[in-house]
This record gives sequence, structure tokens and C-alpha cells, in this order.
Amino acid sequence: MKFHVFVFVGVVHLLSLNCGKAVYGNGISQRTFQEIKEEIACYGDVAKAIINLAVYGKAQNRSYERLALLVDTVGPRLSGSKSLEKAIQIMRQNLQEDGLENVHLEPVKIPHWERGEESAVMLEPRIHKMAVLGLGSSIGTPPEGITAEVLVVTSFDELQRRAPEARGKIVVYNQPYTSYSRAVQYRVQGAVEAAKVGALASLIRSVASFSIYSPHTGIQEYQDGVPKIPTACITVEDAEMMSRMASRGSRIVIQLKMGAKNYPDADSFNTVAEIIGSKYPEQVVLVSGHLDSWDVGQGAMDDGGGAFISWEALSLIKDLGLRPKRTLRLVLWTAEEQGGIGALQYYQLHKANISNYSLVMESDLGTFLPSGLQFTGSDKARAIVEEVMCLLQPINVTQVFRAGEGTDINFWIQAGVPGASLLDDLYKYFSFHHSHGDTMTVMDPKQMNVAAAVWAVVSYVIADMEEMLPRS
Amino acid sequence: MKFHVFVFVGVVHLLSLNCGKAVYGNGISQRTFQEIKEEIACYGDVAKAIINLAVYGKAQNRSYERLALLVDTVGPRLSGSKSLEKAIQIMRQNLQEDGLENVHLEPVKIPHWERGEESAVMLEPRIHKMAVLGLGSSIGTPPEGITAEVLVVTSFDELQRRAPEARGKIVVYNQPYTSYSRAVQYRVQGAVEAAKVGALASLIRSVASFSIYSPHTGIQEYQDGVPKIPTACITVEDAEMMSRMASRGSRIVIQLKMGAKNYPDADSFNTVAEIIGSKYPEQVVLVSGHLDSWDVGQGAMDDGGGAFISWEALSLIKDLGLRPKRTLRLVLWTAEEQGGIGALQYYQLHKANISNYSLVMESDLGTFLPSGLQFTGSDKARAIVEEVMCLLQPINVTQVFRAGEGTDINFWIQAGVPGASLLDDLYKYFSFHHSHGDTMTVMDPKQMNVAAAVWAVVSYVIADMEEMLPRS
Repeated sequence: MKFHVFVFVGVVHLLSLNCGKAVYGNGISQRTFQEIKEEIACYGDVAKAIINLAVYGKAQNRSYERLALLVDTVGPRLSGSKSLEKAIQIMRQNLQEDGLENVHLEPVKIPHWERGEESAVMLEPRIHKMAVLGLGSSIGTPPEGITAEVLVVTSFDELQRRAPEARGKIVVYNQPYTSYSRAVQYRVQGAVEAAKVGALASLIRSVASFSIYSPHTGIQEYQDGVPKIPTACITVEDAEMMSRMASRGSRIVIQLKMGAKNYPDADSFNTVAEIIGSKYPEQVVLVSGHLDSWDVGQGAMDDGGGAFISWEALSLIKDLGLRPKRTLRLVLWTAEEQGGIGALQYYQLHKANISNYSLVMESDLGTFLPSGLQFTGSDKARAIVEEVMCLLQPINVTQVFRAGEGTDINFWIQAGVPGASLLDDLYKYFSFHHSHGDTMTVMDPKQMNVAAAVWAVVSYVIADMEEMLPRS
Repeated sequence: MKFHVFVFVGVVHLLSLNCGKAVYGNGISQRTFQEIKEEIACYGDVAKAIINLAVYGKAQNRSYERLALLVDTVGPRLSGSKSLEKAIQIMRQNLQEDGLENVHLEPVKIPHWERGEESAVMLEPRIHKMAVLGLGSSIGTPPEGITAEVLVVTSFDELQRRAPEARGKIVVYNQPYTSYSRAVQYRVQGAVEAAKVGALASLIRSVASFSIYSPHTGIQEYQDGVPKIPTACITVEDAEMMSRMASRGSRIVIQLKMGAKNYPDADSFNTVAEIIGSKYPEQVVLVSGHLDSWDVGQGAMDDGGGAFISWEALSLIKDLGLRPKRTLRLVLWTAEEQGGIGALQYYQLHKANISNYSLVMESDLGTFLPSGLQFTGSDKARAIVEEVMCLLQPINVTQVFRAGEGTDINFWIQAGVPGASLLDDLYKYFSFHHSHGDTMTVMDPKQMNVAAAVWAVVSYVIADMEEMLPRS
């Protein structure tokens, strides 16, 4: 996942939910909701069939095995890279061979940035070669690097207070990790804020919940009118060490070399497959994850897992011979990590049809054992989703949280379409996020089975109900 | 900690213990043990004073701050390196300035190995630059590296069964991590076993309980009569990926380059300080940790923490104006990681006096919140130690486990001297062990306070009791 729309700030707002007792909002009669409840309850056997196939049956571990094969074969899939385009072509073939319908690629333009060779060496107070990862979209340094004294700060406020000290220095941010959404602001805006006070470069403490000396990359953003300076992430360990050194009065000097370059936008594709609706084929439940990743690790967790349980959801439904009334559309986004670039172009192309989107779903926060579903939508729609989640009692994943979101689906959600995302262990997720450690080792086939079952039941039932989800 | 004497195999044998109800072994009268219990009970106020000073008083966080200053200043401290010798000189000065007695360095000879530049790149089935750390004492490769096909095995048994396939290849061990003591055999003997069947090099899955793409180095051992081949550790992630690739029938080719070199033995020192005993100054309770580390991270956990709570134990006792009847001797070992090299020479020099060693203690398994004390000794001695641990009820660290050990104190334990070591969270310990992640970020000042209090109370009371600990 990228950064900017992640509004989840540590505390989960759990909507109280007792299966079969959800309270429907105003504006629709109690009787009508009773009918909807009865309609949903009829899906009990279908839900059990999906669960049995995904978790205990022939399909178990399939999404894990499919994902392992792809990411072992192509590795990470950075926007603009050949490996991303190779992955897209493989996925088109996979989806066709799986027997899904209307498999096609929708062309888009995406950013092309390459990190090149990079290094950061502490020269004073002692020689220390630091782990470093340039941030996406950062410019490089001159070939000889930037060698400068360091100013360590723990916040933008401290940077402002100490602005006169920053000129000509490398600013090191040692911001605490209180939540991802707070800490990530330093990764995104750290270079701009440092440049405003005359710094030559900025190094950001990796935005991570846990570290074994692991740098975590991600996108950063320049601002018009502010000089562009090179920026990279360092480890939590080195940021803390420099903070200690600075507090003891030690002079710290770093040599930073980055070969990063931005190239003209590249050609890429959103990858689409469907199960076409039997009764309202023009109406859509969109199920998605993104196929691109950062250029480290394997992009297995972010977002291979989300992409592959989304594919798995359609596979399960197809394997059971089910065809919902509405079209189930799988979209594997491209260039999510650069800010939902592929998804924005998809939205612009398809938004004329927005009234036909019943629900947009994206899994991009891990596919570990799900805590439940995050949902954004009207109270009426939420009540329906809560009823649907009751169908997942056999695997004990029934909770519905606030703030359904996803970089790629937020365009639709902000325009009023109900949106759902999968929630699981965020501490674990942000231990590996955007690091070399985002590999298949993180993934658990049994957890992916459960996540896929949740994804399939929700998407199928919402796509098959007689009415679309009500909007505000 | 090094490897070979670590006999702790996953399950802790907890001796049942209720404070004040310990059962003394045969051969000494119940009345006599009652007297010992009463003697120990008299130390209740002293124990509380130590705990108050270490955990709540002026000394709190001192061992953490002292350690941070040292490891931030000198970094990691590999046997044979200048930084180790710098650390030893700093520590001598620290101990003198702390007002400890008989501060001196005891010269020893230690191994001098340097890793040089190293890299491992997968060439087939796809290009993938792998994280790698050469293993201590390994030879290097030719400058052009070794490029060869890979044979992946999960055990020595599998290697034997597939011996004809290994000739001319790089053997990759993907052994499971069931326990440290089992898995570490692959790190130590992996190269020898691979060489016996004609392999050109061996790569070992890092011996770690958890990974964020982190290689974990450590010592390995060649064997007379078996060709020496280069050997390094790779990450859990890459070992698992290659295992998956091999199981799919993919041909894997790696280029391994290692600039590792072994040099003639270097001069070094064990660092010693004392509080000289008031009544039996020739009798000794030895408190210890090792000052050397691997050449990655900061050696903060392994074994900066153990060394610094050992120093802290003497500091606390001195600060309280206490002087035990027996001599409390602090030893900061050198070259533990190469197999207790400094400690062996210490033992050879001092073993003539072995009858005067009441207890040898080493902390080398982390200084997180202690689970308790591991102890090796006679039943009679154990009963006494259990009573002493009852004094730590105020901080709830009273358990006495089996198998007190430590690479540096095992020479004494095997010769019959009672031995004690500190036990804590081994899952956490082996997440960071011998990796770039062994830094101050792992350390917790409050947990170090508690560990130091345990260490000080046990060492002081055993050193001050009227009689030495009974041997078998």
C-alpha cells in the first residue's frame, strides 16, 4: 500500500455487531430490512460451500501456491520495470487459463523511477556503512555524493525551531512510530520540509513497527517551488543511534550517494477479468489488489496477497459453478505504490458508469488471519454488510470496522460508492512493509485460505443480492 | 554467544521451587540446611537495597547508558579487530574510574579473521542479489568468485542420500529452525559435510527464530583432512525461495564472491576488575560476559548486555558500600565468539586455583526481562541457589532452571565448579543474534536494571556467605 489515504490511526472503531441483530438505519422500513436479512440468510449454504472449498477443500493453499510461483519467477515489480510488465502478461495468461471471462488489459501510463546504486556511510564520529533505500521519485546525488554534517530532529516542529542549523546539512528524521499514518508524513514530506530550510538531503527513519536493521522504502513527494533534494530511508537502529550521538554533542558526518533517476512515464496495464453477471451484467462488484510492488523483497505481502486472494475469490465462485446476478470484476492495479496511478486512470475511464458500482473492494493491508472487514458506506449499506459477514461465522471472521479504504478504490469511495477492505495484523504488516523482508516467508497459506473465503463470500453475496447496496 | 556448548534444546526443565521450601539434597543434615536458609534470609535487606538502587534508585538505566556510549563509540568488536582492542582499553579506564579494585588486563592470543567484500548473486532462474554474511573462519573465494549450480537440501541426511548430485555444486542448507542447538550444527559443520561430497561452497540458512531478510553470521569449523570450501549464511527468505524453486525443478545458479581471510593470531586481553573479599580474598565468585562480538550490528545484545550487567553488579555492590567475604571478580572475556578463546587461556592460567572458585557466572543469552537463573551444580548447591533466588521476590525473578552454562565458563563447570547463567526470552534473542540488528534498539534500560539486580544479588550473597557452594 501507498500512504496518503490511510486514515486508520491506531484505534479501530469496532461497530458492535451480533449476527442477526444488526440495526438498520433510518429511511427504510424494519420489514424491508427483515426481508433483506432473510435474503442474506439464504446464502448460508453457499457461504459454507465457499468456505469448505477454500479452507478445507481442493482449493486450499491455491492462492499461496499461485502467488509463490509468480513472485519467485519475476521477483519484485516496480512501476516502470520489465518485471512488472512480465508479471502482468503472466497474470493475463493465468486468468485466461483459469477460465475467467472478459480477461483483458487496460492500458495506462505509469511513473518510471529507478534507484540505481546507492550508499550511505557515516564518516564521523566513526566509520559505519549504513543500510539505506532511496525513496521513490527521489532525485540522485552528484556522482561523488553529498558529504555533509547531520542535523537530527524528531519532528517537523523541531526542524522549524532549529531551522538556522539545517542549512547545508543532511537532515535526519528520527520521528517516533506512533502510527503508520503519522510517521509516514516524514517519509512523504521530509525532503520538502528539509529543503525549505536549506538542507542538502534528508534521511528518514524507516516507517516500521519492528526492525532487524531493515530499511523500508516508499514514495515521497516534491513540491513545486521547493528545491528537490535527494532523500532516502535509513534503519530505525541508525536513526536512534544518531539521535543518541547528537544528544551527546557528537558531530556526525555522512556521505550519501544515490544513483536514482526519474524517466519518462512508461506503458503499463490494469489487468481485468470477470464473471459476468446473469441478470444485471452492467452492474459491478469490483474486487481488487495491486500487482506492482516496491523493488525490494518479492512484493508478496504488499500486495501479492491482496491481488491473489482477489483472483482466488473469482476462482472459488467459478469452481462452484456460481454466477451472481451482477458482474464480479477482478482488477489487478498497476502503479499503486506511486499513488494509485493505474487506478486513477481506470476511474477516469469508467466513472461515467459509477451508478452501476455496487461495491468496490481492495485488499492491501495484508492477507494474514483477517480481523474482519473495514467498510465505508451508508448506515443502510453497513447494516447489510454486517448481515453478510454473519455468513462467515463458521470461520469466525464477522467483525465490520469503520474506514474501508484502499489507495486504488478511494476514488470511487470518495464519489459515494460503498467500499470494503480487509483488516488484519497491522503490527505484522508494518514489520515487513516496503522492505527486503516482504517475501513468501511472511505469507501463510492457511491464513490466505481464510482471507480468500471472506473475500469470496462478501463479493459473491453482494453481487448476487436482488438490490445494489444503498448509498447515502 | 558462540555455539557448541549450548545444550538448551527448547524445553526448559523447571525445578519446582517455592520460596523457603526448597528441599536440600542428601548428605547434609536438615538442621544444617535450616541454618543456611536462615543465613540467606538475613540478606533480605541487602537484596532490597540492591534492587532499590538498580531498579528504582540513582543507578537505574546506568548499565544501558554505559553500554550505549561504548557501542555507539566503537561499534562492533570482532576478534582481531582494532575496535575490540579499543573497547578493551576504554573498559579498563571505565573500571578504574568506577573505583573498582585490581583492574588489569590479562594478555591472550586470539583469532584474526576478516570478511572483506562479499556478495552472492543468483544468476538463474532470475537475477537476484542476495544478502549474505560469510561465516567466521571461512576462507574466501577466488577473486572471480565461484559460479555453480545449487543443490538445496534440508538436512545432512538428505545431503548423504543425494551425495552424487553435490559434486561441483554449491550446497544450500534450508534446515528448519526447531531449536538453536539443532539448527546451528548446519552453520558449524555445513561446509565440512558439503566438502566431503565434493561441493565447491556451502550457503547456510541463517540460524534465527525470526527474519526480516536478515543474515545471521557466526563461527564455522573446518576439519583436518577435509578440503576447506568457502561458506556463508544467507537469509531464511532466500533459503526457502531456493527450496521452492528446486522443488519445481528449476535450475539455480549462484555466483558467490568472498574476500574473507584468516590472519595470524592477534594480541588481546581479558579485562578484569574486583571487589576484593574481606575474609577469604583468595576465594572467588566470578561474574562475566564477553566484550567481543561479531562484526555486524553493535554487539549490544551479544554480549554487550551481559558484559555491562556484570560490571553493573560490581558497581551496585560498591555503591552500597558492601564488601563480601569472598572476592567478586568481574571478567570481560575476549574472543568468545571464536569458541571461548580468551576464556580457555584464562582457565589454563588460573585452574590451579580451582578449589577456590565458589561460583562462575556468565550472562550471554540476553539481558531482557529475566525468566530466572540457569544453574549447574550439586543438589546441595542448587538448594542454596534456590534460597538465594527467593531474595528476588520483590522483582518476581525467582525461578531456577537446569543447565547453567556459557561458552566462557563451561571450562570451570566441566571441572566441577558450580555455574550460573541468566535466562530470558530466547525467541527474541535469536531474532537478532549475530545480525546487523544486534544494536541498542534491541536493548531496554528497565529490563537491564532488573537483570543487573538479579546478577548483583546472586553474586554478592554467594560471595558473602560463610561457606563456599558445595560441589558434588
